[in-house]
Amino acid sequence: MDFRIDLNCDLGESFGRYELGDDEAVMASITSANVACGLHAGDPLVIERTIRLAVRHGVSVGAHPGYPDLQGFGRRVMDLTPEETEAFTLYQVSALAGMARANGVELAHVKPHGAMYNQAAREGKLAEAIARGVRRFSRELVLVGLAGSALIAAGQAAGLRVANEGFPDRAYNADGMLKPRRLPGAVLVSIEEICSQAMRLATEGILVTEGDNQRRVTVETLCIHGDHPGAARNAAAVRKSLEEKGIKVISFT
Amino acid sequence: MDFRIDLNCDLGESFGRYELGDDEAVMASITSANVACGLHAGDPLVIERTIRLAVRHGVSVGAHPGYPDLQGFGRRVMDLTPEETEAFTLYQVSALAGMARANGVELAHVKPHGAMYNQAAREGKLAEAIARGVRRFSRELVLVGLAGSALIAAGQAAGLRVANEGFPDRAYNADGMLKPRRLPGAVLVSIEEICSQAMRLATEGILVTEGDNQRRVTVETLCIHGDHPGAARNAAAVRKSLEEKGIKVISFT
Amino acid sequence: MDFRIDLNCDLGESFGRYELGDDEAVMASITSANVACGLHAGDPLVIERTIRLAVRHGVSVGAHPGYPDLQGFGRRVMDLTPEETEAFTLYQVSALAGMARANGVELAHVKPHGAMYNQAAREGKLAEAIARGVRRFSRELVLVGLAGSALIAAGQAAGLRVANEGFPDRAYNADGMLKPRRLPGAVLVSIEEICSQAMRLATEGILVTEGDNQRRVTVETLCIHGDHPGAARNAAAVRKSLEEKGIKVISFT
Amino acid sequence: MDFRIDLNCDLGESFGRYELGDDEAVMASITSANVACGLHAGDPLVIERTIRLAVRHGVSVGAHPGYPDLQGFGRRVMDLTPEETEAFTLYQVSALAGMARANGVELAHVKPHGAMYNQAAREGKLAEAIARGVRRFSRELVLVGLAGSALIAAGQAAGLRVANEGFPDRAYNADGMLKPRRLPGAVLVSIEEICSQAMRLATEGILVTEGDNQRRVTVETLCIHGDHPGAARNAAAVRKSLEEKGIKVISFT
Repeated sequence: MDFRIDLNCDLGESFGRYELGDDEAVMASITSANVACGLHAGDPLVIERTIRLAVRHGVSVGAHPGYPDLQGFGRRVMDLTPEETEAFTLYQVSALAGMARANGVELAHVKPHGAMYNQAAREGKLAEAIARGVRRFSRELVLVGLAGSALIAAGQAAGLRVANEGFPDRAYNADGMLKPRRLPGAVLVSIEEICSQAMRLATEGILVTEGDNQRRVTVETLCIHGDHPGAARNAAAVRKSLEEKGIKVISFT
Repeated sequence: MDFRIDLNCDLGESFGRYELGDDEAVMASITSANVACGLHAGDPLVIERTIRLAVRHGVSVGAHPGYPDLQGFGRRVMDLTPEETEAFTLYQVSALAGMARANGVELAHVKPHGAMYNQAAREGKLAEAIARGVRRFSRELVLVGLAGSALIAAGQAAGLRVANEGFPDRAYNADGMLKPRRLPGAVLVSIEEICSQAMRLATEGILVTEGDNQRRVTVETLCIHGDHPGAARNAAAVRKSLEEKGIKVISFT
Repeated sequence: MDFRIDLNCDLGESFGRYELGDDEAVMASITSANVACGLHAGDPLVIERTIRLAVRHGVSVGAHPGYPDLQGFGRRVMDLTPEETEAFTLYQVSALAGMARANGVELAHVKPHGAMYNQAAREGKLAEAIARGVRRFSRELVLVGLAGSALIAAGQAAGLRVANEGFPDRAYNADGMLKPRRLPGAVLVSIEEICSQAMRLATEGILVTEGDNQRRVTVETLCIHGDHPGAARNAAAVRKSLEEKGIKVISFT
Repeated sequence: MDFRIDLNCDLGESFGRYELGDDEAVMASITSANVACGLHAGDPLVIERTIRLAVRHGVSVGAHPGYPDLQGFGRRVMDLTPEETEAFTLYQVSALAGMARANGVELAHVKPHGAMYNQAAREGKLAEAIARGVRRFSRELVLVGLAGSALIAAGQAAGLRVANEGFPDRAYNADGMLKPRRLPGAVLVSIEEICSQAMRLATEGILVTEGDNQRRVTVETLCIHGDHPGAARNAAAVRKSLEEKGIKVISFT
């Protein structure tokens, strides 16, 4: 059987004087970069640098739009209206796409960030607003969302290509949603566990959730966190373990 | 002789709950709209609304990038590096262009805002950075700058089309620069004065500066301020007085 | 019988170039000003101006802390942790208190804004965090909250004086909470209705909620909205109608 | 002879998810902490944490107000009016002082940050505006400024106590101003050089400027940078070398 999987990472999350993540080190192991767009993180200079880094590493460039909440890093629930969400998505995707093209590369995908991503996994109206914002920019963009979530459904309904995402280093609730970060055990740290969850997601499409239940999922891309200590090491280990098992690590686009 | 002139106005400068300018009323009289991009003013919803309004009125849509200084409305001098200025310009132009296209119209021009505009009128390095930011997005965009200024020169050197701008309602220093707003007499309020300065700029290319000196200038577009009380009335009066003299009021693009 | 009531208004909500509300006109009719603290609205210059205006009119000065969400004007639900909410409250109260004292007046009360206010009316943990933030600054401050709400209970538990607030121009849900602004009929516009709701709240302590049910409430202060068109007129009309009925309009402090 | 000197450091410059500086490690070596106030850096939670850390280490707490320019980290020149500068100073000092008191300590001093500090070293009007903002909060506060600068003069004229500051790890221009950070050699990195410049400043009051000229200065406090790599090590080394020479390292307050 022929397995292939994309490895993506949220990058370009520095801001002005503030540096976050070791983008350069992570780039070597991933195939898709989700670049923060200046609202929850990132600024025009950071975006420029990150896109150039991606181009140099042959990594696909995507937009990573988030809520306008720098202090909360886009991780706080906010109740934007669908109309706002659509406009904020379109704005951020447009900014990234223009900067990508000016650096010789086409924007390939869009993955919402943080609370926007999590809320869109469950809330249909919000998910549809995001999908509309993406679709209005271009029908060629791939929308990345939590595997099997409302965001994936909304992307498909909008006629977009979608990529179901799995998280090798996160624990899942029984309903297939991510366990919130503030809870203990939400983020896996053992490299063995991370690699074995990556394998299970990539090859068997099996999600082990709370209480050791299993859910079937389709996963086209795996998320590697770039702002954790040891991000680069984790990314390299996951990639190596996948490739050793004969899985082709390649961008979904 | 065949005279033609563009009338432009800075619009879309509301932000969230804050409303500024009577955009709808002004649209009826102008031919080019410079839409704030979300840094010194504007937000994604406001941008969306403003572009739609322009489309409905058949008004050309341009980007109006500014400094990241909402509290100062982009009117405070800031010393961004040329690299920052270039990236901030490209970011804002990209955002506007994407939102324009999603609303069925191509971005036509770029005019920097406030302190960025004034500093770029004098400072070559800054002007070149702005021109690069615009040019990297597209060589089809028209760069609008103070008539005869360093920004116009930088745009031409970058291979961009340019539009020299005159201000019917602003007083000029002897060197052809705008008299700073904080000084008395900087903003003309008499409609007769405004209309006659508009005529002089549009037909004779004559700038009456401080001390009643005259400077020759080329002017392809006249700026109508949208955030002054009576903006809509002024815009209508200027347009009427120009058209009565047989001048064709038409977008430069 | 001797009735007395405070009239409060949210003021100082301008920001930089953006002007909101006719603060000067409203000051003439109210007894307590809730001054925005620079997070959801307001900036240091605006705060300074607003405090001076209050001093000139003999109006009590209070802090009006909100969420760090200028674009959403503090009206969007956000899930700050209790620890964050406490620190954000203390920060804003401190800033206002220092600026008040520098202008010769002591801060008298604190009333949370928008979504913070509404969430704190229902959520005990959030309400307690706000009360702690206030209490840590000073036990002399009065905490203003929705009449009979969780915020009032939290203030009392923290040993603070509280002021139960009623809204003459807002519709109420059956549970005594404010009907959300985005719903039709949430904001009353008829001056007669507003005045009669003011009277009912001030003298009988009766809240007419959705479905014409009645709830008993204690009300020590009535809120007049400062950012509605006709705010000054409404404020004057409410005050006049109360005074005509022999109710003493006086600050609760 | 009896020498004494204060060691200060800019701290609390993290923001939300962004961590900057190893505040805890630096606290062990300094006597005064300048805490960012939320405009150029810092947020209410960070301020709270930093004050508590200072209290635990017996370090004096001061306010470190800056320009409202988070993306530029307050290091970009901005032309606020004196009235704005005064209000922004008062706002930030008030916020810090309230949070300090709520944590059981009185605010001791104020030191402007970055571009505000550098501009106030030369520009009298700006320096006076800052001094007024501080003085209006309390005449007990010590104003920290570049040794011998316009800010020191303005503080004295306003009746404030002042502390002249020297920089062990920065190169100076011939006029006694700091060499701008963007120029090569502006920041010293050799620990020996830093310690010997610290000694010279603390004991002899001699500033070696560009071209090896010497200027006489009075220095009551030395600045240790907290956001440089090796900040904690530098701070410890400077303190040790001073104490070994018999200089008493003690807060100026």
